[in-house]
Amino acid sequence: MIGRLNHVAIAVPDLDAAAAQYRDALGAEVGAPQAEPDHGVTVVFITLPNTKIELLHPLGADSPIAGFLQKNPSGGIHHICYEVEDIIAARDNLQAQGARVLGTGEPKIGAHGKPVLFLHPKDFNGCLVELEEV
Amino acid sequence: MIGRLNHVAIAVPDLDAAAAQYRDALGAEVGAPQAEPDHGVTVVFITLPNTKIELLHPLGADSPIAGFLQKNPSGGIHHICYEVEDIIAARDNLQAQGARVLGTGEPKIGAHGKPVLFLHPKDFNGCLVELEEV
Repeated sequence: MIGRLNHVAIAVPDLDAAAAQYRDALGAEVGAPQAEPDHGVTVVFITLPNTKIELLHPLGADSPIAGFLQKNPSGGIHHICYEVEDIIAARDNLQAQGARVLGTGEPKIGAHGKPVLFLHPKDFNGCLVELEEV
Repeated sequence: MIGRLNHVAIAVPDLDAAAAQYRDALGAEVGAPQAEPDHGVTVVFITLPNTKIELLHPLGADSPIAGFLQKNPSGGIHHICYEVEDIIAARDNLQAQGARVLGTGEPKIGAHGKPVLFLHPKDFNGCLVELEEV
């Protein structure tokens, strides 16, 4: 069911410093910061040959990652995203096996313009897992 | 400098349950458990089309992930691994820019039989980063 690892998202306390580190110290291909006000984050995409790293920094008052950075002031891996072909079928299958989907259970349009869902970390080895329909 | 994301490593409290979940609920290609006594872990590799997930469980008395699971009883993402072509050049470049390498600073042979180093999480946005020479 799951396909490619679409991205690993890392919450960072200083977006400019983290972007500079990936560009200069790690020599990666680093994009420009993109404000995603609907998602409460500013994102910097790092393009690796086989997947992406997304650096996330809070944007606005209700950012979903503000609490994560309060608990983890140095930053940390916030979630991993797996691609699925049919997000409704994936959700129904997972729910039938007892996994919890966060929020209303209905897909939202994610930062890439595609339907996404998040699965409960307690059901997935402490990892926040995003599913993105591709 | 960094190339592909080689793997994401997830520490799990119950290796059989986590492997079954990735195989049955998430429909991924899941390998058999492999004991890695030199590294203090038992590993299950999950092969995605573009990278790998490594499920890690403590093996033996001095497992490097036992403490992590004590702090994170549900499990969690333990580290991410980037590929590099020349691990000594990568290390020297990172150290020249002030990043700390864990342990002696000399590469060890990792679970894939290739030279690896770990970078200090406080220098990398709270993420434990492994570099593997490929």
